[in-house]
Amino acid sequence: MTFLNVGPVFVLGGARSGKSSFAEKLAEASGLRMHYVATGRAYDEEMRDRIARHRAARQGKGWETHEEPLDLCGLLRRLDAPERVILVDCLTLWVTNLMMEERDMPAEFAALAGLLPAMQARVIIVSNEVGLGIVPENRMARDFRDHAGRLHQIVAEKSAEVYFAAAGLPLKMKG
Amino acid sequence: MTFLNVGPVFVLGGARSGKSSFAEKLAEASGLRMHYVATGRAYDEEMRDRIARHRAARQGKGWETHEEPLDLCGLLRRLDAPERVILVDCLTLWVTNLMMEERDMPAEFAALAGLLPAMQARVIIVSNEVGLGIVPENRMARDFRDHAGRLHQIVAEKSAEVYFAAAGLPLKMKG
Amino acid sequence: MTFLNVGPVFVLGGARSGKSSFAEKLAEASGLRMHYVATGRAYDEEMRDRIARHRAARQGKGWETHEEPLDLCGLLRRLDAPERVILVDCLTLWVTNLMMEERDMPAEFAALAGLLPAMQARVIIVSNEVGLGIVPENRMARDFRDHAGRLHQIVAEKSAEVYFAAAGLPLKMKG
Repeated sequence: MTFLNVGPVFVLGGARSGKSSFAEKLAEASGLRMHYVATGRAYDEEMRDRIARHRAARQGKGWETHEEPLDLCGLLRRLDAPERVILVDCLTLWVTNLMMEERDMPAEFAALAGLLPAMQARVIIVSNEVGLGIVPENRMARDFRDHAGRLHQIVAEKSAEVYFAAAGLPLKMKG
Repeated sequence: MTFLNVGPVFVLGGARSGKSSFAEKLAEASGLRMHYVATGRAYDEEMRDRIARHRAARQGKGWETHEEPLDLCGLLRRLDAPERVILVDCLTLWVTNLMMEERDMPAEFAALAGLLPAMQARVIIVSNEVGLGIVPENRMARDFRDHAGRLHQIVAEKSAEVYFAAAGLPLKMKG
Repeated sequence: MTFLNVGPVFVLGGARSGKSSFAEKLAEASGLRMHYVATGRAYDEEMRDRIARHRAARQGKGWETHEEPLDLCGLLRRLDAPERVILVDCLTLWVTNLMMEERDMPAEFAALAGLLPAMQARVIIVSNEVGLGIVPENRMARDFRDHAGRLHQIVAEKSAEVYFAAAGLPLKMKG
């Protein structure tokens, strides 16, 4: 299959908006080898179980799953190959992990921004829009919201296509 | 008036987004007999007053109002007739009531999903998008957000037209 | 430069959605004399510093900045002239200030609605969409959300163009 890699696809949406399902369908339609990058950390037994079930379900459809809470850029570089599609799910969990480890956020975001246009694999990135509610009273939540919003602008700028998902429907914002 | 019923219309939007007004205008433009299904419960005097005022205002425009906090499917079945338009306002209040009564949410949602394509009346459904803010700290609020999001995906899938309302403007997502 | 003033432009978006940058670019592309109306109040040293830095950055690009927490309509009237573009950033901070001073919100909103169509200057208005998260438990936050949503509907109705910004991308809702 010939495949012209025009750049990343970014899928933004709220909780239970169908953003991940839409991203998975895009990847499955690509005909490429599918790699799933999970950025979430399991904090308890229930979450470990759910992650394991999702992983098994994806495996049955041909996905290989990788877990990476922090070094997203390193993993993307190691996985990069033109015959692959890499789905990153999701940016907001990555931001949460970086904040907990008190990483240098602008440096991390700049590294991802620099890497994305150089990727040979097809990259699909999922993230949660969290900035459309009332300003949170909690300072940490406000900082998180600001970091997530800044990262979304950076990733959208580097993406060939951007979708906003709501109620399971993708709305094209770019591309 | 000939009226081709192609399926439900779903209007999703935030608080004070103009979603209900838009849905009412759609119904009023249909030329059909108008039935309004209110799913909200009045918990205090102030809310009872407001509901009564809204009901009177709609009555002046030819609406018949029905209140049903839980058995939405039963009421839709009883009201069903081809010469009618039924406006359901709104799904999130129904979800709240179901949760408070500890109903089986997937079963309730499946019943609605099964019913919608069979309706002969024109059905217009309004709901609140609540998943675009920060993850709530409260467990109940997180569960509510998950239920609402899942139901929105189900209803959007069964709908012929889906709109996202913001600042009084409807943005067509499907149809 | 001939410039047909067809009416206000309204840019709505979440936190860190790129709404202000988009609005500033629209103003800078107009070729008109640029006036920036900041409605926010500095409550501490950190915010005063940030406001001063933003003001200096805009000044370098030819902007004149005005601070007005309450009397937005009075300032707009004083600044009005056909060779000018006036950017108001943002409505939600104005709503916050009006609420703190216990002003008559419907009267204030009606005054702005009456003024906008009469303006000879090009007016660009930025605001935060805050109604797409979970219903806030705090009464004041719920009232704020209701006021902001009502004002957004009023301003969108009076605007020639309305954009919804997300991840730095403007989605046209009207115009």
